[in-house]
Amino acid sequence: MDSRGPLIVLNPTIIDGVAETPIEGKSIWIEAGRIKLICRRDELSIPPGAAVIDARGKYVIPGLMNANVHLLCDVRLENLVRHMDRFEDLIIEAAQVALKNGLTTVFDTWGPRRALMNSRDAINAGQVPGSRIFCAGNIIGLDGPCSADFFPKAAEVASGALAKRINAIWVENVGRHLMWLTPEQVAQEVRAYIGKGIDFIKYASNDHTGQGAFIQFSPRVQEAMVEEAHRASITAQAHCSSVEGLRIAVEAGCDLITHANITGPTPIPESTIELFVKRNTGAVLFPFTQRRLDWFFGMTSHGADLGHTLMRAADTNVRNFIRSDATLLLANDASLFAPEVESDPTWSAWMGLDVDCYMDLRQGHFFWFKAMEEKGCSPMRMLQAATRNIAEAYGKDRDLGTLEPGKIADMLILDKNPLLASENYRTIHTILKDGVVVDREALPVNPILTRPMASPADEEASYVNFANAGKFPMCPTCMSH
Amino acid sequence: MDSRGPLIVLNPTIIDGVAETPIEGKSIWIEAGRIKLICRRDELSIPPGAAVIDARGKYVIPGLMNANVHLLCDVRLENLVRHMDRFEDLIIEAAQVALKNGLTTVFDTWGPRRALMNSRDAINAGQVPGSRIFCAGNIIGLDGPCSADFFPKAAEVASGALAKRINAIWVENVGRHLMWLTPEQVAQEVRAYIGKGIDFIKYASNDHTGQGAFIQFSPRVQEAMVEEAHRASITAQAHCSSVEGLRIAVEAGCDLITHANITGPTPIPESTIELFVKRNTGAVLFPFTQRRLDWFFGMTSHGADLGHTLMRAADTNVRNFIRSDATLLLANDASLFAPEVESDPTWSAWMGLDVDCYMDLRQGHFFWFKAMEEKGCSPMRMLQAATRNIAEAYGKDRDLGTLEPGKIADMLILDKNPLLASENYRTIHTILKDGVVVDREALPVNPILTRPMASPADEEASYVNFANAGKFPMCPTCMSH
Amino acid sequence: MDSRGPLIVLNPTIIDGVAETPIEGKSIWIEAGRIKLICRRDELSIPPGAAVIDARGKYVIPGLMNANVHLLCDVRLENLVRHMDRFEDLIIEAAQVALKNGLTTVFDTWGPRRALMNSRDAINAGQVPGSRIFCAGNIIGLDGPCSADFFPKAAEVASGALAKRINAIWVENVGRHLMWLTPEQVAQEVRAYIGKGIDFIKYASNDHTGQGAFIQFSPRVQEAMVEEAHRASITAQAHCSSVEGLRIAVEAGCDLITHANITGPTPIPESTIELFVKRNTGAVLFPFTQRRLDWFFGMTSHGADLGHTLMRAADTNVRNFIRSDATLLLANDASLFAPEVESDPTWSAWMGLDVDCYMDLRQGHFFWFKAMEEKGCSPMRMLQAATRNIAEAYGKDRDLGTLEPGKIADMLILDKNPLLASENYRTIHTILKDGVVVDREALPVNPILTRPMASPADEEASYVNFANAGKFPMCPTCMSH
Amino acid sequence: MDSRGPLIVLNPTIIDGVAETPIEGKSIWIEAGRIKLICRRDELSIPPGAAVIDARGKYVIPGLMNANVHLLCDVRLENLVRHMDRFEDLIIEAAQVALKNGLTTVFDTWGPRRALMNSRDAINAGQVPGSRIFCAGNIIGLDGPCSADFFPKAAEVASGALAKRINAIWVENVGRHLMWLTPEQVAQEVRAYIGKGIDFIKYASNDHTGQGAFIQFSPRVQEAMVEEAHRASITAQAHCSSVEGLRIAVEAGCDLITHANITGPTPIPESTIELFVKRNTGAVLFPFTQRRLDWFFGMTSHGADLGHTLMRAADTNVRNFIRSDATLLLANDASLFAPEVESDPTWSAWMGLDVDCYMDLRQGHFFWFKAMEEKGCSPMRMLQAATRNIAEAYGKDRDLGTLEPGKIADMLILDKNPLLASENYRTIHTILKDGVVVDREALPVNPILTRPMASPADEEASYVNFANAGKFPMCPTCMSH
Repeated sequence: MDSRGPLIVLNPTIIDGVAETPIEGKSIWIEAGRIKLICRRDELSIPPGAAVIDARGKYVIPGLMNANVHLLCDVRLENLVRHMDRFEDLIIEAAQVALKNGLTTVFDTWGPRRALMNSRDAINAGQVPGSRIFCAGNIIGLDGPCSADFFPKAAEVASGALAKRINAIWVENVGRHLMWLTPEQVAQEVRAYIGKGIDFIKYASNDHTGQGAFIQFSPRVQEAMVEEAHRASITAQAHCSSVEGLRIAVEAGCDLITHANITGPTPIPESTIELFVKRNTGAVLFPFTQRRLDWFFGMTSHGADLGHTLMRAADTNVRNFIRSDATLLLANDASLFAPEVESDPTWSAWMGLDVDCYMDLRQGHFFWFKAMEEKGCSPMRMLQAATRNIAEAYGKDRDLGTLEPGKIADMLILDKNPLLASENYRTIHTILKDGVVVDREALPVNPILTRPMASPADEEASYVNFANAGKFPMCPTCMSH
Repeated sequence: MDSRGPLIVLNPTIIDGVAETPIEGKSIWIEAGRIKLICRRDELSIPPGAAVIDARGKYVIPGLMNANVHLLCDVRLENLVRHMDRFEDLIIEAAQVALKNGLTTVFDTWGPRRALMNSRDAINAGQVPGSRIFCAGNIIGLDGPCSADFFPKAAEVASGALAKRINAIWVENVGRHLMWLTPEQVAQEVRAYIGKGIDFIKYASNDHTGQGAFIQFSPRVQEAMVEEAHRASITAQAHCSSVEGLRIAVEAGCDLITHANITGPTPIPESTIELFVKRNTGAVLFPFTQRRLDWFFGMTSHGADLGHTLMRAADTNVRNFIRSDATLLLANDASLFAPEVESDPTWSAWMGLDVDCYMDLRQGHFFWFKAMEEKGCSPMRMLQAATRNIAEAYGKDRDLGTLEPGKIADMLILDKNPLLASENYRTIHTILKDGVVVDREALPVNPILTRPMASPADEEASYVNFANAGKFPMCPTCMSH
Repeated sequence: MDSRGPLIVLNPTIIDGVAETPIEGKSIWIEAGRIKLICRRDELSIPPGAAVIDARGKYVIPGLMNANVHLLCDVRLENLVRHMDRFEDLIIEAAQVALKNGLTTVFDTWGPRRALMNSRDAINAGQVPGSRIFCAGNIIGLDGPCSADFFPKAAEVASGALAKRINAIWVENVGRHLMWLTPEQVAQEVRAYIGKGIDFIKYASNDHTGQGAFIQFSPRVQEAMVEEAHRASITAQAHCSSVEGLRIAVEAGCDLITHANITGPTPIPESTIELFVKRNTGAVLFPFTQRRLDWFFGMTSHGADLGHTLMRAADTNVRNFIRSDATLLLANDASLFAPEVESDPTWSAWMGLDVDCYMDLRQGHFFWFKAMEEKGCSPMRMLQAATRNIAEAYGKDRDLGTLEPGKIADMLILDKNPLLASENYRTIHTILKDGVVVDREALPVNPILTRPMASPADEEASYVNFANAGKFPMCPTCMSH
Repeated sequence: MDSRGPLIVLNPTIIDGVAETPIEGKSIWIEAGRIKLICRRDELSIPPGAAVIDARGKYVIPGLMNANVHLLCDVRLENLVRHMDRFEDLIIEAAQVALKNGLTTVFDTWGPRRALMNSRDAINAGQVPGSRIFCAGNIIGLDGPCSADFFPKAAEVASGALAKRINAIWVENVGRHLMWLTPEQVAQEVRAYIGKGIDFIKYASNDHTGQGAFIQFSPRVQEAMVEEAHRASITAQAHCSSVEGLRIAVEAGCDLITHANITGPTPIPESTIELFVKRNTGAVLFPFTQRRLDWFFGMTSHGADLGHTLMRAADTNVRNFIRSDATLLLANDASLFAPEVESDPTWSAWMGLDVDCYMDLRQGHFFWFKAMEEKGCSPMRMLQAATRNIAEAYGKDRDLGTLEPGKIADMLILDKNPLLASENYRTIHTILKDGVVVDREALPVNPILTRPMASPADEEASYVNFANAGKFPMCPTCMSH
């Protein structure tokens, strides 16, 4: 990378993530992957051999970051078995999809540790293109994919040996059994896990069994885990889904809180939001656009009251966070799924795949901007939520998050001004990562999940699904096997 | 009953179930529960003390019959446990609801044998009012309510002792284990069962597990069962749900076939319908009104193809039976359910309770007339399908089914002519059963299932269903416990 | 009660629950339901009309108490439906079984509040005999019987209306939805619940879903609940099943901790046991006899490691509590079940009904003494654990727990010395409650659950369970419906 | 093959499958894959270049055949997904394991048609070694692996697209929907299926849902299917599991009946066995050794009565078949499973893997001989059941089944006389297939399922299964999720 000659981004409007207003009339000198200078055109003499991007009339912003993605999120049994020996390929595909859509850095907050670290290292070493990855491995306290925390039925279908192996890959030594232990015992396990090379820790403050209101770890244990992270100079975050789970995690000293606005039916009390501000705890938000909220409220199949409680509270929380001085972070559980499920009508309808789906790795971050804009967040604060705030909350602001000399040269050149309309974030003209222009057309290099399903053989087309072909529709109160 | 004086129905239009056209200008002399005379007014001298119903301008038809009801159909665990020691009360309530709505005789084709026979005998002895009952007890070959044939999950929730006891009450010696036996062995069990006093036998030609296309008994076994019934001078019928199951039952010599038009996705071949005609096998039909068919085709939740296969075939079969010379019989699985389920939104929607629900004991027979009328069945044929044909198919035509001297005086006096519009069957003015005017207002005497649910106590109103109150809606591919 | 004449228990050995050693040579003068005097024979002049029990050579101890029973524990769907309108009868039956076996006072720590209070009041008013009841109603935070906290499948089998009604009866306003709320909101609900007349509160510190390691309520919420109880001058206790759940509950100020020795695979740290001592928190123990431990360790069906973790830790905890100065309390989740399940081979084997079953309402307290004796607890400490300690922990020691003048005259007269061998607690000669001799033979007055199952009718005997009669045994990896 | 020089098997004892007694003093001249001559040593002059096997003192028998194997039997979801694109490799591995253990020809009676035919053709073309395969594809009438006929839960875990694809691979146009059709419609589908190149047809006479007593197809439909097979000059067989299903299949004209002795709790009537004899229907038997029967009867977990009904009837049937003149065939559902399940303690115990497991592809046929020997079958009849009878029943006796000039040179050279003790079948010295010595050591060439599981990575070893590590053991009547 060092051997590359300089690159000049000429005359853009620069929104550097620091200044209150856009900077006009300056250019950006990039060298050896970093920003060397940001200065007026007449202050620099472009050396021979230097590459130049004429960005007049365009807008340069720091590369977008995502505080919470899952690069390997499709942990359904069939997807894991099919790709058992190449999780790295799935992760890198996802990192390339992310990069292609403007995310130059992503924080993976749940996945198979070793494959994530291998992928991270391959991208950092320049062996493959992709969004820069920081990863946590397992959410401390959760069991693996074939368990009550994710797919309980998978464990009934898989062989015991396979289910255990899959769970072990995800969980290693930081699974559910920690819930039985004392603070000292938990700290010891977390210390060992940190020692394996993760970039930050994430633990469950609330349960992930589908209930969401249980407290997974006592305050004493949470404090012990945060302390271990800080002792190792990495950040700590918590998965929360209730007002009390959230409160405990903030008090325990977490640096950021995942989907801080998802607290069941109860809005977060004002005093807790004030605590975010006071402690400068990062509030990672999952805002929903009005279109998606309307869609959700219109559905009856999710239970009559849900629209009036959970989603309403989630929205209220976002609005209250915006009203406060809290540090906001963009994130969305962004992920890819195999085409078998993405094309499934039931799943697609349930996920609302075509209704501003915030989890879509390809464009979920754009829906984030749209949602926040609707709720009245200021444009500059949104930009910082997607760049500088994330870098700072994760302790990566020495290198990332703003356009300043000395920082890594990750940036987006946009055709239109993102501060005028959030929609303009989509007008990506050029992506630079590590000072190099990303070949977006080439991504993902090796499509796996993003490749369409193979067509069945001719002979298979004659198969008639028995149930659809005439099973007598029995009453729902009987015959329900 | 014998001590009652004569009763004269004066000057109605008589549709006696025999003559091709209505009879005008005659009156009906009833005595000792039977029709003594049908003659011109001037041919009879009304004795002093005789009761007289002035029926001028009204229409008298034989009492309606239903070839297939289930007087105790709500076999959900809670209903059975709640009323364990008084199934007779439930059965009599249903028989009274039936009578109140014009059904003077019903054939119960599946239920707890002893309670049904006790109820039958109590009604026949005049101890309680109610529709006249003939009953089969269990459908030979089926297991009980807490089994794979009805509610498999009930068997997982009930204690083993209770599940076994409930099943034993329904099944006695003629359950699923007969499927393992030879024709001779099955015949022996059926003989014993007939000996207990049932009025006719019903066996499963197709399975009742929700599949419906399996053959429950081989042709050899079916023939052996029919032979046992005929040897005992009672009729035999079969539960069928596929074209081959139907064919076997007709060939085995069944006297009538339950819901003969329900054959999965495949319409009945012409040759099989001809066999019905040739052998004079009664075709019990479950026709659906166009309104119900439209409702069904409009639902997506039952599987995309069902509307285009099963229901379409069921309708085609009805139309083909009407086009043929087959003997048609009215029936509809008429039943009552506890208010807990009738008021349940899911169940109600699934059943289409308010969409011409053919199973409704109160008015399902009226929907039957409506559906048949829509499909072009002639008015007189419909009337006979609801009266004479049933009596004949069940071998009860010496006493029932028509208005003829010597027969039991079961009849309906209608305000409007049922031959002009099927809707007119609803204009019941008076019901006579056994020559006595039925006090319709008094029925049911002791409402149990037809009584509304009790209101909860005040303290219970504060209960908040957790799931509705904010369970985070997990994706359908996970968390499905 | 007041009108009854005096009763003299003459010359027993008195173990009054206060003195370090048994008292010889004194008699007990009872009047108006209370102990009037305990003095030497020559100090009292027995009035005419006074009743006298010659207890020379016998041993008098305070009436036994049980800190944790469930008088209506059989909440299986069928039992609830069957007895829906007479839960009081079930509760009183259980209270009578308890009294018959020496328990003069029981603390019901989970059940249907209104029926429990009605039963309590009827017994207190002398309308029916029975053990004195104090009750908590619902365990705050738990959902009802037809829920994930107890029988999830029941909710799939019951109608929605019934399941909701049953849950509402148990839960009222203090169910799972409290988990979503802030401390202030929870306190308000708890205050309302206390206002309904319960005797103490019990809340869930750990979950009751079968996992047991989740924290149900945050420390802040637990403190708020305890504060509400204390403000109302009643005691607070917690259901705990992990070391951290336990710790939080003790720190929150609970007066006693249910099954304090059940903490999953991890023994309680020494520091937490010291906290019990320091705060004088009552430690309710569920000790297992060696015979039962051996039985448990010998079973393989409960998972290979369980014997080496959970049960071993439970036993270790008991031994550590005995070694400490903590206040110990006798309890055992004592309960009655319908004969349908008690006679079920699977259930019976699973429960180990004949292996020193600690939950047996009839004799579980005797197994408690046996287990504690085996583990080295001193005889006097055991006696106090079953009497005075319970009275004190629940704040009932003004009236109950010891044999002292002024206290309610609840006592057992034993044939043999219970301080010599725990087995001697079984040698009950006479039970006095409220100063009156209990007619043990007459209890329970109206057997319901303790009455054997009715025999099936003859006809039912011919039923053959299909599965046992020849279902082909499919492989466990398939066909598992 | 034709270019290979002659091979002489010199001086063995020849048990040719035809003669009543062994033939001494003759040798076998093999050329171009077939037997050219069987004559006395002095009648042949061994040409130069001819290979000679000195078999003096050894025993030559026809290559063993197996009338019913499943070369791809492990259709658990994970196994199918893992090997989705190489079912041929699994099938060939199994065919090689079969050949290695003396089975020179196998009849695969259920599996994925295209992969089976591809494997068959590759082996026949000499591209890979392996047992000669004849195959039927799907069992006509059954749905695929992810269905109620095999693994219903797999369909709940797999994506809809995958489940449908897997089912379609197995089922094509001959699945469960045929059950709804008329004989003419079914015949048309079967004709199309035969046209795809299968070697024989197999259809379900009884169901495969775990019940086994339902009739899958009416006699009329069964006759139509058999007629289609015979019109195409191939054989027809039926899957039967009840006495009536069996009877129908024999009457329909099936050439052989799979596991003819498995008929639920009811032994086959004498008249049906006579029908086997009269029609020369091949009786494929699954006999159990006494050791396995004892093991089975000793288990209680399979239901108290099973040992006294199903297994006893199965054994009785075998003994009755032996007593009759029926044509017997060796078979055993021989199959391979992935090491994940073979090493699973639950599965292994359930299958009785180490108790003369008749399904073991490696040695199940030896247990067959052992079982039949125990029940009194004559040695020569056993030999023919494993060779000539199978060839004849499947119409392959022009080429296979005996040692006669002109036939394909498939034979086993044994060290010991198999007619003296069935155990001697295991003393395989040399296997010839198509006249060529099989390199047994080299088989299977590419172990997949027969390769042991890979060890987990070090990091995975620290995973603690939560349930085993301390889940509180809840009562079986609750908490069963």
